[in-house]
Amino acid sequence: MHTTVNRQILLVSRPQGEVQTDNFRLVETPLAPLAAGQVRVRNHFLSVDPYMRGRMNEGKSYAPPHPLDTVMLGGTVGEVVASENAAFQVGDAVSGFDGWQEFGTSDGGSLKKVDTTAIPLSAYLGVAGMPGVTAWVGLRHIIGAKAGETVVVSAASGAVGSVVGQLAKQSGCRVVGIAGGPEKCRLVTETFGFDACVDYKAGQLEADLAAATPDGIDGYFENVGGVVLDAVLERMNAFGRIAVCGMIAGYDGQPMPLKRPSLILTARLKVQGFIVSEHLDLWPRALEEITGLLAAKRLHYRESVAQGLEKAPEALIGLLKGRNLGKQVVKLI
Amino acid sequence: MHTTVNRQILLVSRPQGEVQTDNFRLVETPLAPLAAGQVRVRNHFLSVDPYMRGRMNEGKSYAPPHPLDTVMLGGTVGEVVASENAAFQVGDAVSGFDGWQEFGTSDGGSLKKVDTTAIPLSAYLGVAGMPGVTAWVGLRHIIGAKAGETVVVSAASGAVGSVVGQLAKQSGCRVVGIAGGPEKCRLVTETFGFDACVDYKAGQLEADLAAATPDGIDGYFENVGGVVLDAVLERMNAFGRIAVCGMIAGYDGQPMPLKRPSLILTARLKVQGFIVSEHLDLWPRALEEITGLLAAKRLHYRESVAQGLEKAPEALIGLLKGRNLGKQVVKLI
Repeated sequence: MHTTVNRQILLVSRPQGEVQTDNFRLVETPLAPLAAGQVRVRNHFLSVDPYMRGRMNEGKSYAPPHPLDTVMLGGTVGEVVASENAAFQVGDAVSGFDGWQEFGTSDGGSLKKVDTTAIPLSAYLGVAGMPGVTAWVGLRHIIGAKAGETVVVSAASGAVGSVVGQLAKQSGCRVVGIAGGPEKCRLVTETFGFDACVDYKAGQLEADLAAATPDGIDGYFENVGGVVLDAVLERMNAFGRIAVCGMIAGYDGQPMPLKRPSLILTARLKVQGFIVSEHLDLWPRALEEITGLLAAKRLHYRESVAQGLEKAPEALIGLLKGRNLGKQVVKLI
Repeated sequence: MHTTVNRQILLVSRPQGEVQTDNFRLVETPLAPLAAGQVRVRNHFLSVDPYMRGRMNEGKSYAPPHPLDTVMLGGTVGEVVASENAAFQVGDAVSGFDGWQEFGTSDGGSLKKVDTTAIPLSAYLGVAGMPGVTAWVGLRHIIGAKAGETVVVSAASGAVGSVVGQLAKQSGCRVVGIAGGPEKCRLVTETFGFDACVDYKAGQLEADLAAATPDGIDGYFENVGGVVLDAVLERMNAFGRIAVCGMIAGYDGQPMPLKRPSLILTARLKVQGFIVSEHLDLWPRALEEITGLLAAKRLHYRESVAQGLEKAPEALIGLLKGRNLGKQVVKLI
């Protein structure tokens, strides 16, 4: 017997500063019968990602603000439960971009079949999905890290940062993570194999970073901004490259000035912002390397799993406060 | 009869904040007879450039601090007056890097013969020398400006900025200068042919810049830093490129924070610092284009000329305060 009700989380207001649970509302909506060409997916996992914070704002960004009173956007993985589209069969495992809802109904254009024999479904939201490719593009395409160089990654225990560091190790780099707290730092060095991890909450970021990067820093994968970026800039070597992927510290609207932009000149740095969805040509190469490493068990990942659709807002709030360990997902089934 | 005394200006102390004339001292030194292989040049013009301020500091920069109690560094052009080196004849016009002194004596390794039939000697310190090549490298190599794009240049009336704008016009760009005061702005539009010039001293930088760049900004040649950089960043289009050539505003040691570095991410900008002396491979191409345009009278320049060696410190101080118009030189003869 088919379920006839869909549960969805709508974005209903824009955060003033920090995200609050009442920026969202859970609604129940009837599921209409499929039209010709449509596919219905029962989502098993929702993705929770830092970029979502930016989409909740009204202001100028790389993408338009997510419209109010619509289903909160986001990546999803699940199983086809009904199909009027010859390209999809009931039972297919797929990744998509259905947002925060139990069922996604679409023409299948943004769905992609995924192989779960070697890689678990949820990993397609993380290491084998957008965050993993983000790590690859920033490290391989923007930073271009070479053997012997020192690469630093902020938010190092997260879905993106953990992959950046592991890929840089594969390239023969010295890899130093920056993360918040001893638990995350342990994960970074013990599970993800970084050479060192600096706990920015320990109160001596500059000194600890200096000790961990005796030869300076050649490549920096920027996920946070703010004082961390200032500290890293001071240690960049000549011709260093900085891939700017995220600036969580500034998402809530506080101004996060950069203390010494003149270092960009004196160290002849390249500082480049990028959005992974604008490098679609690189995705196949990225996923080929990532899935190969995963299959060979040479790439590790960790997930924080929230249980149930109604927990998605709290999961996002926790992520933005750094409470997750590894990739944050919401499990629906 | 040969002169036997050389007059030189030494750097004798490091500025605390702004440069003062007493950071320098004029001395007279005997001229020794030439040894085998040496060349003696009577300098006609000394160069005065913004980068000199950085070299006067003790701190970390792209080049070591200029040592105290030695002749102040800088580019020079002049005439060979004695030679024990087969590669140079008395009467040869040469450019070099002899520093602030009337006579330079060297093995000729850093001297380059220049052709003054079509291009005046002093121009080899400006448009046909390091500043002109700096403009070319920043615009053609870092920014890569394309027809139809909007390019903004700060310090637009200066030796570098004026060439950046004219080269960008050659490429079919809309070109907007930023300069201090109505006289400089007139020079920028009337003599150098920019489409518009914003006077940052007029008190409404953001509004004036917005009016002058209705389609946003695709390329920015950064010569000053500080509030000008903040204002430009706010108007950068997606995938904009910023060539960071100078940050005069910060040379005196004040911190000049960047207000919204997160724009680097949201607009996916590339921000790259560069030093022209590290792109020697590009000099021949740059000079070929520049001298061709000069010969065709399609590239214009302006000089501020200080008279006499003893005026060099004041000329530098004036340059750093923006009192010059165009390339600042010191005429010795």
